[in-house]
Amino acid sequence: MATVYQHSTLAALMGKVLGGSATLAELKQHGDTGIGTFDGLDGEMIMVDGEVYYMDGEGQIHHVTDMEKTVPFATVHHIDDEKQKVSFSAGDMKEMVSLISDRQLENTFSGVVLRGSFNHMKVRSAPKSERPFPSLSEITHTQREFEKNDVDGVLIGYYSPELYQGTVAAGWHVHFLSDDRTFGGHVLGFDANELAGDLTIFDNYELHLPIHDKEFREHHVDMDGLKEGVAAAEGSQD
Amino acid sequence: MATVYQHSTLAALMGKVLGGSATLAELKQHGDTGIGTFDGLDGEMIMVDGEVYYMDGEGQIHHVTDMEKTVPFATVHHIDDEKQKVSFSAGDMKEMVSLISDRQLENTFSGVVLRGSFNHMKVRSAPKSERPFPSLSEITHTQREFEKNDVDGVLIGYYSPELYQGTVAAGWHVHFLSDDRTFGGHVLGFDANELAGDLTIFDNYELHLPIHDKEFREHHVDMDGLKEGVAAAEGSQD
Repeated sequence: MATVYQHSTLAALMGKVLGGSATLAELKQHGDTGIGTFDGLDGEMIMVDGEVYYMDGEGQIHHVTDMEKTVPFATVHHIDDEKQKVSFSAGDMKEMVSLISDRQLENTFSGVVLRGSFNHMKVRSAPKSERPFPSLSEITHTQREFEKNDVDGVLIGYYSPELYQGTVAAGWHVHFLSDDRTFGGHVLGFDANELAGDLTIFDNYELHLPIHDKEFREHHVDMDGLKEGVAAAEGSQD
Repeated sequence: MATVYQHSTLAALMGKVLGGSATLAELKQHGDTGIGTFDGLDGEMIMVDGEVYYMDGEGQIHHVTDMEKTVPFATVHHIDDEKQKVSFSAGDMKEMVSLISDRQLENTFSGVVLRGSFNHMKVRSAPKSERPFPSLSEITHTQREFEKNDVDGVLIGYYSPELYQGTVAAGWHVHFLSDDRTFGGHVLGFDANELAGDLTIFDNYELHLPIHDKEFREHHVDMDGLKEGVAAAEGSQD
């Protein structure tokens, strides 16, 4: 048994519901491992072994100890849930895509925690937005990309089937944190000699909605624009 | 706090994954109130106060006591979860649709348990399908409709936002059971003088996927055909 827990939806983010609506303390009740972003779509969040790290819009990494800090969106799971070992002799996003097709996991939520030495890593992070919040596509113009060669670190990523596009970004969504805690972000691409870690196949997808949040209740989901919007905002990770 | 628990997806049913993949015993761990169908898309299921009823393809109602009976799809919740009283001076599907818009619940999963006297009730039920399973649209040709006037009973229904179309049928999905346990099914329409009961607004949507089921793992989700397919198979309830 394994459960992946998600707070809010990508459609809410696309509907400019970017205010934090769950605390890290609440989130940590549902997992010790995960990814997300902070109030105002402020940078990128990664949770490793119960510790939370914040990559700001300038690419700087901060260890977060204030558990009252809030998130508008996040995905977490417990690393001790049922899982299996996986390794790749070489690693890039294509191998992670193959992992899903090789094991017939197209219809299932999965997660990975992979460690290795990376020849190259390319990430992005966005600066905090203020109210009135911009759209995700406007934010793509302010976010910055960062690259690093020869870096050791951990990838934490979740795979979601295409069926759930809009609730979440379908396909892989992966964050990185270097072992020396100086580099990380939302992964755009990477190249590794060897990668090893854990694959968790989730039989439970638990979606928590901020039903008391006025902006969440009021946001309009543009179903027609959803698919194109997701592609534009998330970009390709292949 | 309230949680709605769903086993499998409408997309899986549309992909002909109609075999039972959870027992009633498993389902009852997650709720005492709910709706669904049985192995082979066999009739309609309604769970009231922890008791399970099966409406067969001929419109007959059976009290189910074998908790090893399986379901390919079901939605349940605990009636004791946080809820609020609701009542309508007149009742039809339009009032249930208004309930959602009046209370700004378009982005949220909700459930109702409503009791009343119905001037008219129209339901449907489908006979069990055998392998190789037909498509949902083929099954619409074998299902039968049943009508009754002046009947007392209970409606159990779930509302899902449009965002989740395909994971579940968006909008209301409602089953009926008469108080004398002789009539019921998947509700196509009704007319009541007065309806009263409970509205539950769920902050947790828990989706359980039969990840060890070969047919579930292998089914292909036709994303393009999904929306039209749902409309054709579920029909209008307005």
